[in-house]
Amino acid sequence: MIKKISHIAIVVPDLEEAMGFWVDTLGLRLQHVEYVPDQGVDVAFLPSGESEIELLEPVEPDSGVARYMHKRGPGIHHICFEVEDITAVLARMRAAGVPLINEEPTIGTGGKKIAFIHPRGTGGVLVELYELTAEEPARRLERLNDMRRRLQRGRRVYAAGIIAFLSGLRTAGNGQSEKKSAATKQRGSEV
Amino acid sequence: MIKKISHIAIVVPDLEEAMGFWVDTLGLRLQHVEYVPDQGVDVAFLPSGESEIELLEPVEPDSGVARYMHKRGPGIHHICFEVEDITAVLARMRAAGVPLINEEPTIGTGGKKIAFIHPRGTGGVLVELYELTAEEPARRLERLNDMRRRLQRGRRVYAAGIIAFLSGLRTAGNGQSEKKSAATKQRGSEV
Repeated sequence: MIKKISHIAIVVPDLEEAMGFWVDTLGLRLQHVEYVPDQGVDVAFLPSGESEIELLEPVEPDSGVARYMHKRGPGIHHICFEVEDITAVLARMRAAGVPLINEEPTIGTGGKKIAFIHPRGTGGVLVELYELTAEEPARRLERLNDMRRRLQRGRRVYAAGIIAFLSGLRTAGNGQSEKKSAATKQRGSEV
Repeated sequence: MIKKISHIAIVVPDLEEAMGFWVDTLGLRLQHVEYVPDQGVDVAFLPSGESEIELLEPVEPDSGVARYMHKRGPGIHHICFEVEDITAVLARMRAAGVPLINEEPTIGTGGKKIAFIHPRGTGGVLVELYELTAEEPARRLERLNDMRRRLQRGRRVYAAGIIAFLSGLRTAGNGQSEKKSAATKQRGSEV
């Protein structure tokens, strides 16, 4: 069963500039920002009802998302549906001859099971399936701790969300005064 | 305020074929099908949590959606957000210099206020805004009655949803046995 639209992922050349539209003008709320090493992207999570808009900025030039943006330009990258039983949905896909990018679920951000369906099988839409797993909360904490360690090593992008997310601080004061960090802090009421 | 993602619209060359993936294989439920004359499209509405996937088949070759598909191929056409106060959001857009397709809200399907934002202002995404209005339920009924009249004149596409939607019938028996109508009836438990 399909539970809901989990998120819509939009690839952008620059998170800071993109948030000028999606957060400052449209009015979505920035919840947090994180680096997703598997995809080589910095991701800004903007909740919208029960779903999220995810803005992806490719930070690794040879990643799939970077190649996508280079080829097709910025815009919508994929839709993700939360499903109850990803294995059952993938079995139906195989039975129907739908080409899959992941034949079996892989473990994504936070420990969830994910799989991508090839746009050839969907009529031109990259579709991600996502099943929440029991271990996801623990993995999320592990990931946040990992990001905090990276932040301590000084990487700019983590300043945006992590310090404030973990400590509740809303003011600058971590010695990183770059444009993106400061602006992101101002925006994210729950960052 | 942004209330939720209202829908994601996906342009497809053929509704029947598209429902083979989105309904039969992925498992979304077909709620109803209707013809939207303003856009020259037949639309299949597939609820997913609090949002919907809308499949658009252009049936007027000179419509904007038809031209879009001709130029860019099938795939995601736009995202629509339900907002509390569309006038306020449009005012923020103008103040920020975001190019608008509709400077003022227009009246869309069912009487809702809608406006489109130009992809130039959003980073390559066609964004629709939607505000539910008090008169929407009455306008929806008026539209359904209008479609019933059209159906009585025998237009194929309405057979899918309208007879069953209005009368609760789930079995064939309206004398229209074409492929799309019959298949749509089988799928849509609430059609």
